[in-house]
Amino acid sequence: MSSTPRTPSDLDPAIAARLKRGADGLVPAIAQQYDTGEVLMLGWMDDQALHLTLTTGRCTYWSRSREEYWVKGDTSGHVQHVKSVALDCDADTLLVKVDQVGAACHTGTRTCFDTDVLLPLLPAEPAE
Amino acid sequence: MSSTPRTPSDLDPAIAARLKRGADGLVPAIAQQYDTGEVLMLGWMDDQALHLTLTTGRCTYWSRSREEYWVKGDTSGHVQHVKSVALDCDADTLLVKVDQVGAACHTGTRTCFDTDVLLPLLPAEPAE
Repeated sequence: MSSTPRTPSDLDPAIAARLKRGADGLVPAIAQQYDTGEVLMLGWMDDQALHLTLTTGRCTYWSRSREEYWVKGDTSGHVQHVKSVALDCDADTLLVKVDQVGAACHTGTRTCFDTDVLLPLLPAEPAE
Repeated sequence: MSSTPRTPSDLDPAIAARLKRGADGLVPAIAQQYDTGEVLMLGWMDDQALHLTLTTGRCTYWSRSREEYWVKGDTSGHVQHVKSVALDCDADTLLVKVDQVGAACHTGTRTCFDTDVLLPLLPAEPAE
């Protein structure tokens, strides 16, 4: 069973018309802490999840593994309060700035990118 | 014609073994300016693109529209120098911190998220 877009949705038709979804009806959504700039996690949204994110003030994703809507923090308490939402130039990726309560990652770390570093931040300037 | 993973790749087998790719063999890669925290864009990598990103110091993506590798900046000059690469807790998303030369977006704006704001940052706190 694969996830498919939940339609019809309540998303503003003007937004729905330009949203470019993947074959599974989903769009990647980057969650970023609005003040520190930390990238917290990447989730997936269909039209309805985006609608709920835009209108409820709480980040709502589509869980590809559980195949259900997932209001971030509903079970963990680690709520994401929505600060802003932007679509990229191709209309196929969302950037959601949030105020994250506690850990964004289900493993308990602040972000989902804290533990599996493939290439560490290099010392500094004379860059590469 | 749909994009498929470019195999075999030269990616470190220990990384390849834990990478969880989408049905198209690709993983979303978030490019973030390493010092300011700006989220610049989201691209897609297959194993070989990740290998090249890890070993050449230049961000390399798989272009889903052109179905070819794309070394960011090769035509525009808007190079991304790789500073660090991390895999998320589910091993299905990459966060690449870079030093972006010039505009990240092909439209000429600094990031790909600058122009299509669905929900503006609320005045709130001393936000921004």
